Amino acid sequence: MTDPTTTTPDRRPGGRTARVRAQVLDAVCAELAENGHEGLTMEGVATRAGVHRTTVYRRWRDVGGLLVDVIDAAGEIDWQPPDTGSLRGDLTALNQQIQESLVVQPSLAVALMAASFHSEQAARAQTRLWADRYAQCEILVERAVERGELPAQRTDARSLLIAATAPLYHQLVLLRADPDPHLPERAAETAVLAAAAGAFSVRRRREESM
Amino acid sequence: MTDPTTTTPDRRPGGRTARVRAQVLDAVCAELAENGHEGLTMEGVATRAGVHRTTVYRRWRDVGGLLVDVIDAAGEIDWQPPDTGSLRGDLTALNQQIQESLVVQPSLAVALMAASFHSEQAARAQTRLWADRYAQCEILVERAVERGELPAQRTDARSLLIAATAPLYHQLVLLRADPDPHLPERAAETAVLAAAAGAFSVRRRREESM
Repeated sequence: MTDPTTTTPDRRPGGRTARVRAQVLDAVCAELAENGHEGLTMEGVATRAGVHRTTVYRRWRDVGGLLVDVIDAAGEIDWQPPDTGSLRGDLTALNQQIQESLVVQPSLAVALMAASFHSEQAARAQTRLWADRYAQCEILVERAVERGELPAQRTDARSLLIAATAPLYHQLVLLRADPDPHLPERAAETAVLAAAAGAFSVRRRREESM
Repeated sequence: MTDPTTTTPDRRPGGRTARVRAQVLDAVCAELAENGHEGLTMEGVATRAGVHRTTVYRRWRDVGGLLVDVIDAAGEIDWQPPDTGSLRGDLTALNQQIQESLVVQPSLAVALMAASFHSEQAARAQTRLWADRYAQCEILVERAVERGELPAQRTDARSLLIAATAPLYHQLVLLRADPDPHLPERAAETAVLAAAAGAFSVRRRREESM
């Protein structure tokens, strides 16, 4: 039993690889949050992570590679959309999570958005992550239809979710407004009222395209 | 009549100052749109503008100063919110202008948003400009109330305007979705339906805060 991949868990390729990745990505998040995207360097990350520079270069190549992996790692977290029993409650809970992630100081979410303006790779990774998250949240709309909270005609779930969440990003990230504790619920309620009035019905959209 | 301030219009302090400012700000916009915020240098701007470096340094001090002045200049344009005869029409027209400014390649609007993540000065100038624009647009809501398109109780105009416009910024700037020609009208209509259902009524908000 001298095979190092089986004797010491830490030295198995998977174990060590996963550990190094966790250390490096934690360091990227800390550096990003502290110094922003411009302050992010391969050397700074290696030093903070306590990992050899050459390992970081070999595995992530450049700062863009580090950013992509941080975003991909966020996508690997076993996140579940809220399930509160009502669409308004679910969207409010979702918006509260979003508000929290944008308001916390320093905010990794905002740092990644800033970085994605400057790194095409990071932008693509972020677009993928957001697409996944919105797709995961479509179940909120399906559940609301099952409960009879939404009109019977098919609802464009993604548009509803964008309408519910966009004001949070717009106010907090782009307009840099002070956080408003009522905003998560108000934005959720606005989307629910619009949905009840048929704003996101697919039938309406089909007619529009004809 | 040897006073240079009266003989040649170009040499009057106001005239020359204004001309140099226009040249420099045009150069900043061109550089930003071509090379983004990271590519913006005092030297590059001076060269492109055909203005002496020392003039640029003396008047704008640094890249942050240039960004602030570009944003302030945008605020000086005599922009008028649309007036189409209906709230839905006005918000659609507003959203079409926003979509156009975000989709045009290269987009100065997106370049300035990117820059504002990295320059506190630019962020403040942009926040001011947006506050002014949203305040200017409140007349759309006032006109809609006068026409009887909105419920009689007072409407929170700013929240309505944010709800109507936020999906454009979210989809095009943050989610990097392909432009959807129907989005300006859909987002406008969603906000109008929500408003008609009382989503932005001030009475509701007061109760909420109690």
